[in-house]
Amino acid sequence: MDKAQQDALKKAAGIEAAQLIQDGMIAGLGTGSTVRFLVDELGRRVQEEGLKFTGVTTSRRTQEQAESYGITIVDVDDVDHIDVTIDGADEVDANFNGIKGGGAALLWEKIVATNSDRIVWIVDESKVVDTIGRFPLPVEVIPFGAGHVIKRFEAKGYKPVLRMDADGKEVRTDEQNFVVDLHLDRIDNPLELAHDLITTVGVVEHGLFLNMVDQVIVGDPNGPRTLTNPNKR
Amino acid sequence: MDKAQQDALKKAAGIEAAQLIQDGMIAGLGTGSTVRFLVDELGRRVQEEGLKFTGVTTSRRTQEQAESYGITIVDVDDVDHIDVTIDGADEVDANFNGIKGGGAALLWEKIVATNSDRIVWIVDESKVVDTIGRFPLPVEVIPFGAGHVIKRFEAKGYKPVLRMDADGKEVRTDEQNFVVDLHLDRIDNPLELAHDLITTVGVVEHGLFLNMVDQVIVGDPNGPRTLTNPNKR
Repeated sequence: MDKAQQDALKKAAGIEAAQLIQDGMIAGLGTGSTVRFLVDELGRRVQEEGLKFTGVTTSRRTQEQAESYGITIVDVDDVDHIDVTIDGADEVDANFNGIKGGGAALLWEKIVATNSDRIVWIVDESKVVDTIGRFPLPVEVIPFGAGHVIKRFEAKGYKPVLRMDADGKEVRTDEQNFVVDLHLDRIDNPLELAHDLITTVGVVEHGLFLNMVDQVIVGDPNGPRTLTNPNKR
Repeated sequence: MDKAQQDALKKAAGIEAAQLIQDGMIAGLGTGSTVRFLVDELGRRVQEEGLKFTGVTTSRRTQEQAESYGITIVDVDDVDHIDVTIDGADEVDANFNGIKGGGAALLWEKIVATNSDRIVWIVDESKVVDTIGRFPLPVEVIPFGAGHVIKRFEAKGYKPVLRMDADGKEVRTDEQNFVVDLHLDRIDNPLELAHDLITTVGVVEHGLFLNMVDQVIVGDPNGPRTLTNPNKR
């Protein structure tokens, strides 16, 4: 599948998911290339159909894009709940366990998701996998002492790589933390790994989103299809 | 006990603990009023006795104080180990479980402690308690979504209070996060509480230091006494 084909699938999933947002809702808007198509479609509906809703975003990038369409964006702490959050994912398996954070926004994404009544992911079919882990697992790490955290990960065989930008500087999250990507290839016990990571001193959050999502809308050459999680909460 | 008496006990504990630092060591230096006396004594030894050691500090305040005495301070990531870390504590019980973070430096304190071969706390006798929890437990929280974290804590009966400064603004840690103090009065199951806190999305770290300390030097009117943890690691 070339990039144009993949973009077409992402766009179809984004347009499908935009139908979930109705007048008066509070909607969480995620981050990433598929979400860009979602926000474009929501912007079109706001401008052409007069859709009125309030957004909460998981990154400054999405906020800027949404506001450029005149969508009202408020802070997560200015709402008492979020009706539905639509976000992308880097991988998702048949147990509705996923990896997020390729775009370095995993912390805000997880905070918004945790406060959402319903969570929907939009992905192209290449993101649906048997076992998660081929996509490097992002871990947000406090810069102070990060070298020691990386050494601990190395000793455990987690194959950590500190994420750098094109200029050879450490990538910083919106919270000014580092991102360490774990090249695990496959994650057979995601619950155990999640526990080990979150109890590591210096780790702020990790990109494992386990059984959090309610529905996954998959961009497929035959049209978007929806997977529904039977075991949510 | 008035403040002058308490300061005398803190100073005695600080001077006693300074003897643990020897030439060539890499020493972690904590934060707080008792540690100030420790660093004063180490500064005296550096200047009068020619003591040479390298320090790693847990806050900018301690770094500035130490450097004012000519003590060499390096970043935690510039050393491959720390021989001993000396720090204060807000409470410690007979199981060597403690609360730290009254000074809002708990995250760096925990990172330095985690990378130390040996941990020593210096306290005045008022800090030694039967059950920890009367001292409000500090939790470092990401500002994004902090209101929702506080609501979750309230629902659990944790009696959270967002820490404010004298100007009525949120206190910020060295990492620019908020501090939420839990007024629990007593903590009967610190392990369970620690697990609940660290797995709460938005929590960076908490002030429970459970069975981490090797020795506690207690400033006592009869002279400093040392409590040794028989179960360390």
